[in-house]
Amino acid sequence: MGGDFGPSVTLPACRVFLQANPQARLLLVGKEEALGSFVHERAQCVPAAEVVEMGDAVEVALRRKRHSSMRLAIEQVRDGHAQAAVSAGNTGALMAIARYVLKTLDGIERPAIAYPLPNIKGGATTVLDLGANVDCTEHHLLQFAVLGSALDAALKGKEHPSVGLLNVGSEAIKGSEVVKRAGDLLREANQAAMLNFYGNVEGNDIFKGTTDIVVCDGFVGNVALKASEGLASMVSAVLKEEFSKSVFSKAAALVAMPVLKAFRNRLDPRTHNGAALLGLRGLVFKSHGSADELAFSYALQRAHDAANNQLLEKVKTRVQLAASLF
Amino acid sequence: MGGDFGPSVTLPACRVFLQANPQARLLLVGKEEALGSFVHERAQCVPAAEVVEMGDAVEVALRRKRHSSMRLAIEQVRDGHAQAAVSAGNTGALMAIARYVLKTLDGIERPAIAYPLPNIKGGATTVLDLGANVDCTEHHLLQFAVLGSALDAALKGKEHPSVGLLNVGSEAIKGSEVVKRAGDLLREANQAAMLNFYGNVEGNDIFKGTTDIVVCDGFVGNVALKASEGLASMVSAVLKEEFSKSVFSKAAALVAMPVLKAFRNRLDPRTHNGAALLGLRGLVFKSHGSADELAFSYALQRAHDAANNQLLEKVKTRVQLAASLF
Repeated sequence: MGGDFGPSVTLPACRVFLQANPQARLLLVGKEEALGSFVHERAQCVPAAEVVEMGDAVEVALRRKRHSSMRLAIEQVRDGHAQAAVSAGNTGALMAIARYVLKTLDGIERPAIAYPLPNIKGGATTVLDLGANVDCTEHHLLQFAVLGSALDAALKGKEHPSVGLLNVGSEAIKGSEVVKRAGDLLREANQAAMLNFYGNVEGNDIFKGTTDIVVCDGFVGNVALKASEGLASMVSAVLKEEFSKSVFSKAAALVAMPVLKAFRNRLDPRTHNGAALLGLRGLVFKSHGSADELAFSYALQRAHDAANNQLLEKVKTRVQLAASLF
Repeated sequence: MGGDFGPSVTLPACRVFLQANPQARLLLVGKEEALGSFVHERAQCVPAAEVVEMGDAVEVALRRKRHSSMRLAIEQVRDGHAQAAVSAGNTGALMAIARYVLKTLDGIERPAIAYPLPNIKGGATTVLDLGANVDCTEHHLLQFAVLGSALDAALKGKEHPSVGLLNVGSEAIKGSEVVKRAGDLLREANQAAMLNFYGNVEGNDIFKGTTDIVVCDGFVGNVALKASEGLASMVSAVLKEEFSKSVFSKAAALVAMPVLKAFRNRLDPRTHNGAALLGLRGLVFKSHGSADELAFSYALQRAHDAANNQLLEKVKTRVQLAASLF
């Protein structure tokens, strides 16, 4: 039901997803009148009386809308009817409800949101946390590193993905007090073979793909993500403006169109849609609210692949292994 | 002497600057053998025995190289021989030496680095702090807001530039504890007409140009800046790659060249080169280390304009006015 466009985007994306994954089944959770038209032998509607709106306060979503589609979807995971839940709705509400319904794993104090950002190597760098936790301790940052490692193991098939600590310089003495202490903890975890710690990385390393995973607190991560989105919007707006300025530039745009399209496709953020909520006793994925059909189908695919590749078991194993340092 | 290219870039830039500013005079501080070749009636060489290297630790630059060109240049400002110092050298060393030689203004605990980032409105958003202070209190953030306001008054001619507080959401209840308290202080300063506080802004607002100034701690600012630089590099690398992939795309590049050039010029970061070190008893500007001739001449121009428009006096007046809240 969620996102900027609701079922007009999510339902066609479901159809794409079902076609691409002949073993997969979908539970469509939401208002019956909105979803009832979707008929597929591997899809089933789970009717929900209420919907969490994008503008709802977390408290409202959590306490007053106990029969929301968001909550019901996460309850499907808790009760074993679904292996993962996907939503394009209100992020704060989704995190709060997921935490309330599923609970965090032993040893994890705070779940994190892990987002894949495209890098120049042609892959994606997993960045976490992206907004769930604004004030973090060094132990939270270590937990994020372990959670992110499990995610990359499940989705990229890398057993020992490299972890970078986002900082203002590459030397170990750089950074805020919390980040310096986090560096010490991560080095310790690395020596104990609990994870593969690369060292400090800087903001540009996210897009260089220096490490598989970049760990930071939710404040820094959110600012880095939004600043990058803002720059990308500006670049694309200016490019568009320049190519439509005159008759000549419009002609140039026609000639360059296939190249510009290839350029756009390579950096298309839609193909990386689907942030993982990690550290919970169940799988929940968050699609960008503005996702279109293609983007939402990618979020469904990521949730499917994560479940298929035992993300939850991988997270549990790694958390248990590293818990002595938490 | 500083930057990646030293006098081979800074000297030609000086010539450009002197030509553009017929009233201006330059003191060239550095090794005589490197600068002696530069002859101009409004330029004079101030010989220095040592040079701070890009890789020097702050301690080395500050304690062991007491006759460095960097230090001597800042002493010219302290002693009234120059109205501003400009360097493309080691940022940490420059800040430490500037702070040691010039001292901070009464009421200012920590100087900040203010950087102009291009925005979609065609201007630049002044962002501070960008790396000088990684652990900040709410009072530091308020001080940054006052310092940035003085800079924009001097360089953009805006008496009441708007200030945004970088946060993870626009509502006042969002953010880390320090940022929430900073919001309270900034609202108070706004009510007392000490500055023009807009409210919270997010990372993308930097490039949207929502406010004239964006205030954040140096850790967040540094990450946002470097993440944006990283994304910009990736975009430009991918664009270049796509345009040189085949005979066809190379032909398309030729046709589109004037448009692509106009695009690049509009977002050219070199035209915004020159970060201000604010809160000191003298003017110091930092050029990007990788600056070329054009970029370095812009840094010289900014320093010149700041001095010409009484930046130092503007900073002092505003700091005095707001000091009751510091």
